[in-house]
Amino acid sequence: MSFDFELSPVVVEWREGIRALVDEVAIPLEQAAFAHGVHDALRLELQAEARKRDVWAPQLPKELGGGGLSFTDVAVLLEEAGRSLLGALAINAAAPDEGNLHLLNKIASPRQRDRYLIPLASGEVRSCFAMTEPSPGAGSDPSLLTTTCTPRSDGTWHITGRKHLITGADGASFCIVMSAGGRDDQTGATMFVLDMDTPGIQLGSHARTIDTTMVGGHCQLDFDVVVGPDAVLGEPGEGFRYAQTRLAPARLTHCMRWLGAAQRAHEIAVRRAAGRPLFGSPLTELGMAQALIAENEVDLAAARSLLWHAAWRVQRGENAGQASSQAKVFISEATGRVVDRAVQLAGGLGTSEELVIGRIYADIRAFRIYDGATEVHKMSLARRAVRRIAADA
Amino acid sequence: MSFDFELSPVVVEWREGIRALVDEVAIPLEQAAFAHGVHDALRLELQAEARKRDVWAPQLPKELGGGGLSFTDVAVLLEEAGRSLLGALAINAAAPDEGNLHLLNKIASPRQRDRYLIPLASGEVRSCFAMTEPSPGAGSDPSLLTTTCTPRSDGTWHITGRKHLITGADGASFCIVMSAGGRDDQTGATMFVLDMDTPGIQLGSHARTIDTTMVGGHCQLDFDVVVGPDAVLGEPGEGFRYAQTRLAPARLTHCMRWLGAAQRAHEIAVRRAAGRPLFGSPLTELGMAQALIAENEVDLAAARSLLWHAAWRVQRGENAGQASSQAKVFISEATGRVVDRAVQLAGGLGTSEELVIGRIYADIRAFRIYDGATEVHKMSLARRAVRRIAADA
Amino acid sequence: MSFDFELSPVVVEWREGIRALVDEVAIPLEQAAFAHGVHDALRLELQAEARKRDVWAPQLPKELGGGGLSFTDVAVLLEEAGRSLLGALAINAAAPDEGNLHLLNKIASPRQRDRYLIPLASGEVRSCFAMTEPSPGAGSDPSLLTTTCTPRSDGTWHITGRKHLITGADGASFCIVMSAGGRDDQTGATMFVLDMDTPGIQLGSHARTIDTTMVGGHCQLDFDVVVGPDAVLGEPGEGFRYAQTRLAPARLTHCMRWLGAAQRAHEIAVRRAAGRPLFGSPLTELGMAQALIAENEVDLAAARSLLWHAAWRVQRGENAGQASSQAKVFISEATGRVVDRAVQLAGGLGTSEELVIGRIYADIRAFRIYDGATEVHKMSLARRAVRRIAADA
Amino acid sequence: MSFDFELSPVVVEWREGIRALVDEVAIPLEQAAFAHGVHDALRLELQAEARKRDVWAPQLPKELGGGGLSFTDVAVLLEEAGRSLLGALAINAAAPDEGNLHLLNKIASPRQRDRYLIPLASGEVRSCFAMTEPSPGAGSDPSLLTTTCTPRSDGTWHITGRKHLITGADGASFCIVMSAGGRDDQTGATMFVLDMDTPGIQLGSHARTIDTTMVGGHCQLDFDVVVGPDAVLGEPGEGFRYAQTRLAPARLTHCMRWLGAAQRAHEIAVRRAAGRPLFGSPLTELGMAQALIAENEVDLAAARSLLWHAAWRVQRGENAGQASSQAKVFISEATGRVVDRAVQLAGGLGTSEELVIGRIYADIRAFRIYDGATEVHKMSLARRAVRRIAADA
Repeated sequence: MSFDFELSPVVVEWREGIRALVDEVAIPLEQAAFAHGVHDALRLELQAEARKRDVWAPQLPKELGGGGLSFTDVAVLLEEAGRSLLGALAINAAAPDEGNLHLLNKIASPRQRDRYLIPLASGEVRSCFAMTEPSPGAGSDPSLLTTTCTPRSDGTWHITGRKHLITGADGASFCIVMSAGGRDDQTGATMFVLDMDTPGIQLGSHARTIDTTMVGGHCQLDFDVVVGPDAVLGEPGEGFRYAQTRLAPARLTHCMRWLGAAQRAHEIAVRRAAGRPLFGSPLTELGMAQALIAENEVDLAAARSLLWHAAWRVQRGENAGQASSQAKVFISEATGRVVDRAVQLAGGLGTSEELVIGRIYADIRAFRIYDGATEVHKMSLARRAVRRIAADA
Repeated sequence: MSFDFELSPVVVEWREGIRALVDEVAIPLEQAAFAHGVHDALRLELQAEARKRDVWAPQLPKELGGGGLSFTDVAVLLEEAGRSLLGALAINAAAPDEGNLHLLNKIASPRQRDRYLIPLASGEVRSCFAMTEPSPGAGSDPSLLTTTCTPRSDGTWHITGRKHLITGADGASFCIVMSAGGRDDQTGATMFVLDMDTPGIQLGSHARTIDTTMVGGHCQLDFDVVVGPDAVLGEPGEGFRYAQTRLAPARLTHCMRWLGAAQRAHEIAVRRAAGRPLFGSPLTELGMAQALIAENEVDLAAARSLLWHAAWRVQRGENAGQASSQAKVFISEATGRVVDRAVQLAGGLGTSEELVIGRIYADIRAFRIYDGATEVHKMSLARRAVRRIAADA
Repeated sequence: MSFDFELSPVVVEWREGIRALVDEVAIPLEQAAFAHGVHDALRLELQAEARKRDVWAPQLPKELGGGGLSFTDVAVLLEEAGRSLLGALAINAAAPDEGNLHLLNKIASPRQRDRYLIPLASGEVRSCFAMTEPSPGAGSDPSLLTTTCTPRSDGTWHITGRKHLITGADGASFCIVMSAGGRDDQTGATMFVLDMDTPGIQLGSHARTIDTTMVGGHCQLDFDVVVGPDAVLGEPGEGFRYAQTRLAPARLTHCMRWLGAAQRAHEIAVRRAAGRPLFGSPLTELGMAQALIAENEVDLAAARSLLWHAAWRVQRGENAGQASSQAKVFISEATGRVVDRAVQLAGGLGTSEELVIGRIYADIRAFRIYDGATEVHKMSLARRAVRRIAADA
Repeated sequence: MSFDFELSPVVVEWREGIRALVDEVAIPLEQAAFAHGVHDALRLELQAEARKRDVWAPQLPKELGGGGLSFTDVAVLLEEAGRSLLGALAINAAAPDEGNLHLLNKIASPRQRDRYLIPLASGEVRSCFAMTEPSPGAGSDPSLLTTTCTPRSDGTWHITGRKHLITGADGASFCIVMSAGGRDDQTGATMFVLDMDTPGIQLGSHARTIDTTMVGGHCQLDFDVVVGPDAVLGEPGEGFRYAQTRLAPARLTHCMRWLGAAQRAHEIAVRRAAGRPLFGSPLTELGMAQALIAENEVDLAAARSLLWHAAWRVQRGENAGQASSQAKVFISEATGRVVDRAVQLAGGLGTSEELVIGRIYADIRAFRIYDGATEVHKMSLARRAVRRIAADA
């Protein structure tokens, strides 16, 4: 018999724990976080509670203090955590740290593991990932990298360039920076892991984007630093490959978290509508409200099924790129539609932070852009499809 | 570890057999079928070949000569068969026979099994299911049934009323007819299984709908018949419940077949586009063509994941109604979008039968209407959601 | 005061006449036409009636026997005629003749006016326009023309090539054919106007497309003919320019006719729904049905406003290309949506010819492809926008 | 000849003046306004500049110091002003004052004209309109009004109730409040115009909605006041009728302003894309970017044509309700789509205030909800359509 959609007992127990954490700890702290921003003090408070309740980092291997769960299990748990915009942060599975943990665990040197991975896994510090650059630099097209690394005769590297929209940069302890070069012929790209207080790293202004719940904002960073060879992450010249290693699962963890947020927005809107009279009926008996509710149910179910399927492929290493691109495109659009309908169903307060939906609406928008804009994934999906289908002819 | 999306070896082998049948037998017969209609001679030719190749009726229990496969396995195989509009017919898994087989197997009396189920399972005869009535009779709202059954003092029943759009009626050997009444107080509904040559059954005109590939058309049927108690299918008064028994899986087998047809339309369009120069590039390198291709890939992947998930739920009897409604809504709309994009990508010949896509485009449209229009499923999904979510509050 | 949307009294009177013709003559003939095809006998019957009622060819100049009305007036009248799929044919304003009349009137030589334009204007004969070629020939990209014209030393031209999907070819009296070449260096394109019985013109098979109401079908045409210089339409080498002359207004007349058809489908569906009980209410009081109706009203109103605006621009020769591209994209998509919703609202019979909506649904699909596929217009609109907006910076 | 889309010379001159005001005054003040909020000092600075440049209040009659222009002219000018989120405020045509001016001019008593209308028209003071109430009070369904007015034996009225989301309340000089009652049998609704410092009016908290550019926020207001008969606006009991008088044009002025904002977002995104290389081409030559640009061009053109048509109908008093509902539904959705595409085209900074688009994205969302949610207008449009079309049968 093909297919099994059963949740393992372990994941069911974890899910209950995370649900309790979200309902009892994260949600009660949300309004203050929305009004005053998400700061490290709040992060530490949330994370202490998650550790106390033994729902820490399900995605991390046990040797790093995490749950050691499979990626399909993680799909269930990060959705659950994502119901609050503070939930993934509480269990140390928020972007960008979650992707950095994954990457460091794959390629960090023993020194880098001790210095960066261990304290990041424990929640002692935060980190950032410096890839995006102002136009005409690297964004959707990574080949446009303008930040460069130049090897010097003494074995050190000179890294110079400007990054922007670097999430979490303000207050991060260290940074993984992507730079062009590293091969003998200066092609390729190289990742470095750098302490943020390295001389020559300059933290610039926060972009005033409409989302507000990422610790450390989205900042400009200028680099003009000289660092030793132990700052290289992995091998010089292999940066593009490592970026893919980071991105395929990181895209899906975004999908997991935002699916939870969209589910929450939907539930808030439905609960609110359920108690409301309008034009002589309960609002939830009016056909156009029912359409909004049902379309959300359908989009959420389709997104969840596709996500589970894609997580299973990534876990197996089987067409992982195609599966994660398909999921990213569909789920970023479907969750966007769900939250938009929730706003509409909630009416006047739908765009407010008080009802939470408004905050999710603003914060989720960039999800269709970062980690590969919808259009970039479509280009890549179309090319794969043409190769697969036309070859088949 | 949660979830498994692996295909069993048995289903992989069946899939290869069905693919070969479709490619080698069904597809070569399509153009003639499109030009001259799908007749019983063609059906018998297709079915003989399927039997010869041992790919007969995967969905039927072994004791009825079928494959005895699970519903999740069937999801894979009916999609494969659906790649040709003649494929499901070939393996005796086409509507309406496939749903009638399922229903008869659940509730037919021993006499009815011998007389109707066995010859239907073997492909010896065809059948129809007479539920829909002209307005203001039963359609989306089954409570509007105007065809009635009246018990007579001698134990016989008098069935009277008009049905329309009865698929497969012309040439069917027998008919399952739904009528109001059957309980002592004349409420409820009762199903009867009747030979089509029963005096008092009048076959009317075929509706001139834009689809053309259903054997036996969509016909009007008038009933004014008196039949014995052995014509009752199951228990009198339980017709609405049996209709649900038939519909939840029947909706999903529609989804399976149309998913295959949409996949085929997509592949035809991509293959055709792959070889085509336009504005100085291969057409498949133009961004707007890539968008059509990628959106199809994403819709197909989401539809397939949701279908597998829903089939698993129906197989487990777990929220089967909700799962099959979600799948019906999403997949009927997604496959419609896919075929529409395939038409567009194929350009001038996209609406033609020669390229097959045009035929699929016209034939698939009614799928958003029959077996529960999108809007009816949405109403039901919204009510379930409100109960579930608001109760949770 | 800016803007005036008042209809002139002349156009109001014409509109009443055309409405009467459609209601009293065209609509009663529709079912026979759907069942048996639209033949010339039917065309002549319709056209005789239109002449008798003095509603002949509003778009043609008076000297050709037409109404001599402005293009904005024509927008109102062709919408009215378009309510029946036979209406535009009745008043001699159907494609492809309507576009050919416009083109011939602009550039035909005196001989060509007498021989082709006059009998076409009077309805005595039909014509076709042979531009589209099988892949990899000319379609969306006219530069791919493979049909060529070669000048010979005796002043004659040798035209050779294959066309397909030539609407109206079967039974046409003459043909305007587009061929590559004509300039001294063999670049450019040249139009010829040829009697269909010219030796070397071979009428091939009809494509089996899902639309059925164009007289003369969509045919393959093979050319291997030698013709004299008087067969050249306009100047040699200027064919691409003439094609634009034909297309900008021809696109809008398609919009006008299909807007009428979509309006009709909407009205049929609403009338049918108005009398129907469902789930204890009139169907038209159920919110999801109201959404379908209202979205149609909005799409129709937006399409009509944009069409009038575009027609005014074309009439003024002011940004005519941009205006007609915008209108083509929006109106082909909006009318498609309207008819699709009408199918859904009408339910089971929605895809049938009996209810007319099904016929319109199948026939309107190609409108998003011919005379510039949506994607081609979008490419051109984007380039214009970038030039206009970026220049403005 | 039907239709004229020519702009009058007067409106062309006004448009140039407003464009200069927006470009030279409003836009340079935007970033500070986004970062620190829109306060009265900023409003007064903007308005002083508008007066100096003689582009003050085109929509107001000349006797109130305005331009005395027709509503179709105003459509052009408010779109122009709307290009900046501060533009309509600068020319005293922003909500809610613009609607209040219109209403007061129709029905204020001489005393009310002097005390409220004149200083509001001159920009000396601001106002608010208190209609919306917290659930289960009045929102989409005005019949749910819970704020009441009770006549007392001495001729005074006792108004009591809670309002929320009252735009501009903080800092307003006066308030128009809608309350239930006023007829002898306590039915109907009555409007009062009240100084905000009237004892018994309590200004509550600002809702933390995601938009940020309305002066005076969206506030809670509690009423427990006794006022004299001269506070009644118009006739007691006629409040619902006056609300319609205010709303039909007010909906369209929202459409005008947001159309300008959407046009601006589109232009910013196109300009930014025009200079950007991606995957080896200019971004604006990539098909998926061209699709975003072209779809915006088409949506903007359709929205503008429909708006002009609707403004003309409102000006003529001809089907004004239907026309303004159609325009509200289409334009609120179309402008939302346009801004969403502009965000996507702009990429990483698309959600930022620095690029302005992010601010417009967040601020425009509520437009599909206020002054009649999309769904409420659809219900009303469907009913009108059914009456019109079915009556016609």
